[in-house]
This record gives sequence, C-alpha cells and structure tokens, in this order.
Amino acid sequence: MPKSLLWEAGELYLLDQTRLPHEEIVLHCRTVEAVFEAISTLRVRGAPAIGIAAAYGLLVDTDPFITMTELERRRDYLNSARPTAVNLGWALKRMLAKAAQIHTGGNVAQRELLLEALAIHEEDRQSCQSIADFGRPLIKGMVNMLTHCNAGSLAVSEYGTALAPIYRASEEGQALHVYVDETRPLLQGARLTSYELARHGVDHTLITDSMAAHVMSLGRVDAVIVGADRVTANGDSINKIGTLNLAILCQYFSIPFFVACPGSTIDLATSAGSEVEIECRGAEEVRQFSNSLTCLPDTPVFNPAFDVTPASLITALITDRGVVHRPNTRRMADILA
Amino acid sequence: MPKSLLWEAGELYLLDQTRLPHEEIVLHCRTVEAVFEAISTLRVRGAPAIGIAAAYGLLVDTDPFITMTELERRRDYLNSARPTAVNLGWALKRMLAKAAQIHTGGNVAQRELLLEALAIHEEDRQSCQSIADFGRPLIKGMVNMLTHCNAGSLAVSEYGTALAPIYRASEEGQALHVYVDETRPLLQGARLTSYELARHGVDHTLITDSMAAHVMSLGRVDAVIVGADRVTANGDSINKIGTLNLAILCQYFSIPFFVACPGSTIDLATSAGSEVEIECRGAEEVRQFSNSLTCLPDTPVFNPAFDVTPASLITALITDRGVVHRPNTRRMADILA
Repeated sequence: MPKSLLWEAGELYLLDQTRLPHEEIVLHCRTVEAVFEAISTLRVRGAPAIGIAAAYGLLVDTDPFITMTELERRRDYLNSARPTAVNLGWALKRMLAKAAQIHTGGNVAQRELLLEALAIHEEDRQSCQSIADFGRPLIKGMVNMLTHCNAGSLAVSEYGTALAPIYRASEEGQALHVYVDETRPLLQGARLTSYELARHGVDHTLITDSMAAHVMSLGRVDAVIVGADRVTANGDSINKIGTLNLAILCQYFSIPFFVACPGSTIDLATSAGSEVEIECRGAEEVRQFSNSLTCLPDTPVFNPAFDVTPASLITALITDRGVVHRPNTRRMADILA
Repeated sequence: MPKSLLWEAGELYLLDQTRLPHEEIVLHCRTVEAVFEAISTLRVRGAPAIGIAAAYGLLVDTDPFITMTELERRRDYLNSARPTAVNLGWALKRMLAKAAQIHTGGNVAQRELLLEALAIHEEDRQSCQSIADFGRPLIKGMVNMLTHCNAGSLAVSEYGTALAPIYRASEEGQALHVYVDETRPLLQGARLTSYELARHGVDHTLITDSMAAHVMSLGRVDAVIVGADRVTANGDSINKIGTLNLAILCQYFSIPFFVACPGSTIDLATSAGSEVEIECRGAEEVRQFSNSLTCLPDTPVFNPAFDVTPASLITALITDRGVVHRPNTRRMADILA
C-alpha cells in the first residue's frame, strides 16, 4: 500500500490523492506554498494526514535556523488551508509550542523542531494500531460493514482510523465485506476506499450514497463505521458530508454506528458541534462529475464539505485511548483524562 | 418547456433525456425496437411517460391492420424493457384490452387503437393538473421544498407529478425554493430537475444526495415531495433509489414527506412493497460518468434503481383522485373506489 506521505532528506513527499485510483503520482513539496496547495485542494486529505503534512510544512525549504516570526507566519498560513479539521490546528499548535521551548533568541534549529514533526507522525502510526486494538472487539462476528468517505490508510500515516478495526479483523481471518459509499461530490469512497480495500484484499462493494438506506433495509449492514474530522467536548462528531445521513439511518434500522478517531481529533475546547464552522466549497465540485458538467453551467449550488452528527446517534466512539460508549461530555472528559 | 414525447403523423418523437441539459435532441422512433431501446436506456423515463411511450410503441411502424398476435408480441417485448414501473404494464394491458374489444377476426385497426393511446396521453395531462389541484393546499405557505430524481414535466406528458403542486404554487405567486438532489447514479436531479426548474423560473439549489440530512438539520427544508414508480395496495411507495433515505430523514426531523402520482401508478394487485421486483442495473452506471471511471475498473458494484418507502413514513400520497393522508390499505382502496 503506498504511503499517504513521507519525509525524506529534508523534503516532503505526498501521494496525490486527487489522481487516485488511476495514477499513483507522488508530489514533491518543495515550498510551504506547495504544502498549502496540496492541503486546500485535497491532494493530501484525512484529518490526521493533514496534521502531519502541516507539521512538516513548517519545515520545508527553511534555513537550518528558522525565526519564530517565520514559524508563526507559516502556522497562520497553513492553518487557513482548511477550516474544519481540528488536527491541522492541533499539529501546528504543538509544533509552535515546541519551538517556543527550544528557540534561542527567537531562532529555532530546524533539525531539533523536526523531531517534533517526526513524533507526531510516529504517534499517528501507533494511534491507528490502538484504534484497531480497541475497535476490533466491537465488530467481532460482524460480516457486512458500511463506510463513508475515506478513513483508511490514505487518511493517516498508515492503516487507518475507521478501516483500522476492519483491516485487523481481516488480518485475523474474519470473513468481512465492506459496502463503500462513493461519497459525492469528491468521490473519496469510489476513488480511495475501494482502491485501498482492493489493495488490502478486503471484499467490498461500491454503492452510491443514496443506496445506503436500501442496503440496510435488505438486512445487509451489520454496522457503519466512519472517521471524524473533529469531535467536540459533548461527543458530537463532524465528518464528511453524508455522515449525519448514515447515523440517522442506523438509528432507524437499529444498526450500530461507530466513529473512529485519534485523541488529536477530539476538541475539548469546543463544547458542541453547532459551534464548529462548516467549510463550504466551490460550486464546480457539485456541478461537475469527473470534469463533466452534470447540470446547466449556472445552476445554483450549496456545497458544505461536512456535517454534524449529534452524540445521541453515536453507538461508540473508538479512540486510541479506548472506547467511549454512547458519548457525552462526562464520558469524553474521562477518556482524555 | 420541451415536451417529453409527441405522436405526430403516425410516428413517435421522444426528447432524449440522456442528453439533457446540454443538448435538446429529439429522437424519432421509427420501430418498436427503437422504443424499447429508448425505455431501457432511460432516454424516456418517469413512470407515466414510459407508459405513454409504450402505448404508442405498440403502434409504431405497423400496417393499417395489426394482428392480435403481433400486439401480444410487442406487449411482451416492451413490458420487459424495465421491470419496476407499474405504468408500463398498466398502459400495455389497457391497450391490449381495447384491442381485444375492437378486433375483427384477430385484426385490429391501427387508427382505432391509436385513440386509446391518445386517451392515455390526454388523461396523463389532466392527471398532472389534478395532482397540482390536490397538492397545492398541502404546501401552502411553505418556502423550501426538497425533491429527488425527476418527477416533473419530463417524467410525464407535461407539468409533472411531484413538481406539479410546486409549479402551481409558483404560478400563483408563492415564494418557493427547491433543493434538488442530484440523484446518483444517473443524475436525473442535476440533469433534468434543475434544468426544468430553471426553464420554469423556479428558484432552486442543487445538492448531492448526501447533503439532504445536513440541509434539514439547518432548518432549511419545509417538506420533501417526490414521485413514485409504483404504489402498492398498502401505500408502500417504490421510487428512485434514495427516496427511502429521505423519508427516514423526514421522520427524524419531523418534516412532511409527500409522494405524488397518478392513479395509474397505484398497483392494488400487489399488497406490499416487499413483493415488488427491484430493477438492478449495470455496474458501469456507478463506476463511471461520461465515460470517466471513478474507481478501479473491476470494483464490485451494487446498483439497485429503486427502493421501497414503507407507508408508515409517508405523510400524504397526492393522487389525481385526491389526497390519502397517512396511507394504509383501507385508505388506498377508498381513494380508488
């Protein structure tokens, strides 16, 4: 499985996810502007992967010593690439806090600050394994899973969040089949999740987003498992547009609805999902399908990239620190304590 | 507004809906095979329009006298073009019943049988106006409607089923705005509904199917109104894949969910939706759009064209004979009595 991102010899390499599954093209990001562009155009995507890319983005194309002023400028710039994913701000904040500790007269040794970016990257790897550990028992004996968007290897450093328990179960020989929502408008399910499930040898079927209710009504879904871009203090989950839809269907059909994410996705500073700014993207993403216009060129469009799933619809939040069953503010605080 | 179909000088003309909204191309159907092809590839679509096209299809390219054997052969052939829409079978059955009445020694005068096809066509026009009459009061004062697929002018002879009350309200000066689900995989919402709403001057916004829950959560949907391909004796409604999804969301958000259809769509011979065969279409419809592949070429696909919405989720069924509130078997029988 190709890696979503790689830091080598002082430079950042990203797998261009807008070109998958047809082409595996590795982008060489030589400037902070290139990293910004890759994040804002979703060449690198998935909350954890964005955080790691941003951490490295602070260090791309710098002198051996970087001024705090330059780091702050880069932080503000990269932070504005996408507004909703909490990991972006989280990783940049952590990098700046480290810089503030280690600077000498306002200058930070690039090599020393790099250790913090490498630590963020390595912790993400371990975090995915922990999510697999904690999520594995929840899906024991289940056959048919359904997932939305891509919360697999490509969304993180490797292995995945929502797909981590599935990969673990599959490696352990559990018979599994995954329904993959295509995830309009950007088709992350069709392009990325079905691609990586095929690469991992996990049996799967692609459906359009509108088919989930029908598939559930046929009794063919044992559980839904998705990732998250931000989880607020009360357990509300902000994830790819269409997630709320699935959570409501799960309640109707009495199907477990699981959200998987690392602790870095949990934003205790925000009390509820209603406070989170939802990124709205360009009309052309909806007006076009694979660069072909589907409607009249001036058809008005609404294109929110995320929606908010209330905690009341979440059966369990699977984190790298443990499982929060039926999340609420108290249980969320407990898991992070 | 261009007409979905036209019978002129003994020949059938269909607006090729697979080419909309970019090209308005009129297909000249000179053979029954051409009519079959147009129905099965969705060049003509929408349950009522399919019924009308099939009725004319019996009469295309025939001698002045047609044998009952030939009519039966054409009926069986056209009936197999699409399995789910009840109007197809209904119109063909009605034509054959008429033929059985008027034949002389097994021969049917084409000119005489044509009167029955013209009657089916004209009744559809009147039926749409009746649906507008009965549906209009239900949406009085509502501003934001949401619809799925295309149940407008293009799905019938003219005016529409689900869109009929909206057109009527708009003509009467009610301020209206319609959210249009794009309706994957064949994008009838993006291609057809946004096109005809623009042609009728009705304010609208295109969204992907996955966004409906989010738009509802923002309080921006006053009612959902959709068409139907078949309504069974107990009030279950079979309509474009994704309809069940919306009905469940409406229940969750306490939003009225309306189904609009002519009486010819109601199939009292089938007691419940679970008995209806759901057409599954080719994988390439999901795998690609405009010849552009969205996933790996061998990604497994499930592509049901319809789903079943249980009567319990339907606020009201708007027919050309009146409104059935909270449909059930008794109320359905009453409306057709």
